[in-house]
Amino acid sequence: MKNLVFFLLVFLSLTSISKSQTQPFLNFETASLISDAAQQKAIEEGWNMVIVILDGGGNLISLRKMDGVQIGSIDVAIAKAKSAVYFKRPTKVFEEAMKNEGGGRIATLPNAIAIEGGLPIFKDGVCIGSIGISGATSAQDGIVAAAGIAILD
Amino acid sequence: MKNLVFFLLVFLSLTSISKSQTQPFLNFETASLISDAAQQKAIEEGWNMVIVILDGGGNLISLRKMDGVQIGSIDVAIAKAKSAVYFKRPTKVFEEAMKNEGGGRIATLPNAIAIEGGLPIFKDGVCIGSIGISGATSAQDGIVAAAGIAILD
Amino acid sequence: MKNLVFFLLVFLSLTSISKSQTQPFLNFETASLISDAAQQKAIEEGWNMVIVILDGGGNLISLRKMDGVQIGSIDVAIAKAKSAVYFKRPTKVFEEAMKNEGGGRIATLPNAIAIEGGLPIFKDGVCIGSIGISGATSAQDGIVAAAGIAILD
Amino acid sequence: MKNLVFFLLVFLSLTSISKSQTQPFLNFETASLISDAAQQKAIEEGWNMVIVILDGGGNLISLRKMDGVQIGSIDVAIAKAKSAVYFKRPTKVFEEAMKNEGGGRIATLPNAIAIEGGLPIFKDGVCIGSIGISGATSAQDGIVAAAGIAILD
Repeated sequence: MKNLVFFLLVFLSLTSISKSQTQPFLNFETASLISDAAQQKAIEEGWNMVIVILDGGGNLISLRKMDGVQIGSIDVAIAKAKSAVYFKRPTKVFEEAMKNEGGGRIATLPNAIAIEGGLPIFKDGVCIGSIGISGATSAQDGIVAAAGIAILD
Repeated sequence: MKNLVFFLLVFLSLTSISKSQTQPFLNFETASLISDAAQQKAIEEGWNMVIVILDGGGNLISLRKMDGVQIGSIDVAIAKAKSAVYFKRPTKVFEEAMKNEGGGRIATLPNAIAIEGGLPIFKDGVCIGSIGISGATSAQDGIVAAAGIAILD
Repeated sequence: MKNLVFFLLVFLSLTSISKSQTQPFLNFETASLISDAAQQKAIEEGWNMVIVILDGGGNLISLRKMDGVQIGSIDVAIAKAKSAVYFKRPTKVFEEAMKNEGGGRIATLPNAIAIEGGLPIFKDGVCIGSIGISGATSAQDGIVAAAGIAILD
Repeated sequence: MKNLVFFLLVFLSLTSISKSQTQPFLNFETASLISDAAQQKAIEEGWNMVIVILDGGGNLISLRKMDGVQIGSIDVAIAKAKSAVYFKRPTKVFEEAMKNEGGGRIATLPNAIAIEGGLPIFKDGVCIGSIGISGATSAQDGIVAAAGIAILD
């Protein structure tokens, strides 16, 4: 019995080491559930939108373009999501900062989008990806983005 | 009465003109059904893939990246789909042409991808979009692309 | 005692679940050790080189340009590393494929580099990054890339 | 004797011409020492950062991405360094200019970044390169950039 406990403690220790060299990630199933929730909210509100999910490396996992959305929203939604995961913060933070004195500097920050609708997705303190929404007003885009990741709470 | 007949004739004529100014297009619902069929085939075969659908203007409607797919397949699937709709032909046509003497010229053709896995989508003789698949061998990518658009037959 | 064992088993089980949703990654320290080994080999051979390390998302972790290297090698080393992590295979695989009938199709594959010197880096079956080397002949670039990741064996 | 004096005069003249055709440059060793100093300062302060050094032609010599830095900082650090060497001035100069009336014009200036953290590196009056830092606040980025090039004083 003592040996078993010892073994388990050693094993736990090794597992702990192993864990410290790994990190959580966003899989397609979760990305799809987030997209479903965002799309559902958009349909309820009667808004047509592009819904984008990126992984923690800034790469595309999912994109959905609802009918009738302006084609410009495809790149906008991708760019918002990219900004959110690249800077680990909502794009609204940049939108607010833009209003301050000298806030125009944000426009020179590579990959920063200063328009609400992009949100980072965190798990265990790690930024595992992001959501980007475009199609309606930026405030409405933000509502749909929030509805998407609310399923993770 | 004469005026009414005249009015109706003019109206019919305008309607006819109006009808001749529309074209079929690919909506999100159909794009999703095509993607579902492709994804189902990929799962059955045990292949992890990126599945892309573009509209007739070459713009993204849908993208799905299954877990474990190499990230390079994101750009490849988009590029195959773009090649298919830009040239209204399967990317395999360019792959075959590449084998001919001087076939290397295909590599200089903007937006042409010479690797199987991209198929145009037609309706009533109009190219309304395309599918692009990447993740396995190009032949396997082609099988999944075909399984996707088979639902339109 | 029985309770402790039970607790440990439950904890192990939870840890195991947690592990299944995480994946290994490449940290800066390991990237630096790999770069050191590659640089050491380059110095021994008298070759001036650019040494690039990317993470599993294709993002730069480390770049070193030794004196006298042609500036073109900066983008080449980055591109080789990107190709290796994007396609989870050595760039030499594409170099070889290019020699086959119709091999020119590789030139149309987005982000694929068909020149030796790029190698993916794997841990526990996951592609956690890549190394890209440029500056000498492609065979010599490949030797230095291999010397870099040899420290992981 | 007369011949010797003549020879010396010609030799001196040629040497002078030769000197006028050289310029100082930043080598990898110095770039590494600057990066070491910046990294040391970042570690002392508990800030995770991307540290970039460019040469006088605006090309990458060195890049280091410490663990946990947002991936957006990679492009930002490169862009700050590029701005500093392209315009031979600290990026903070543009940040200040952005606060003036009409300062938003800076956002239209190609390659100009209006956020502190980029510094040019001079030697004998020649701009031989630059440092770019990103990862913390722009003021903190500036502190680390200054700590890096302080070793040249």
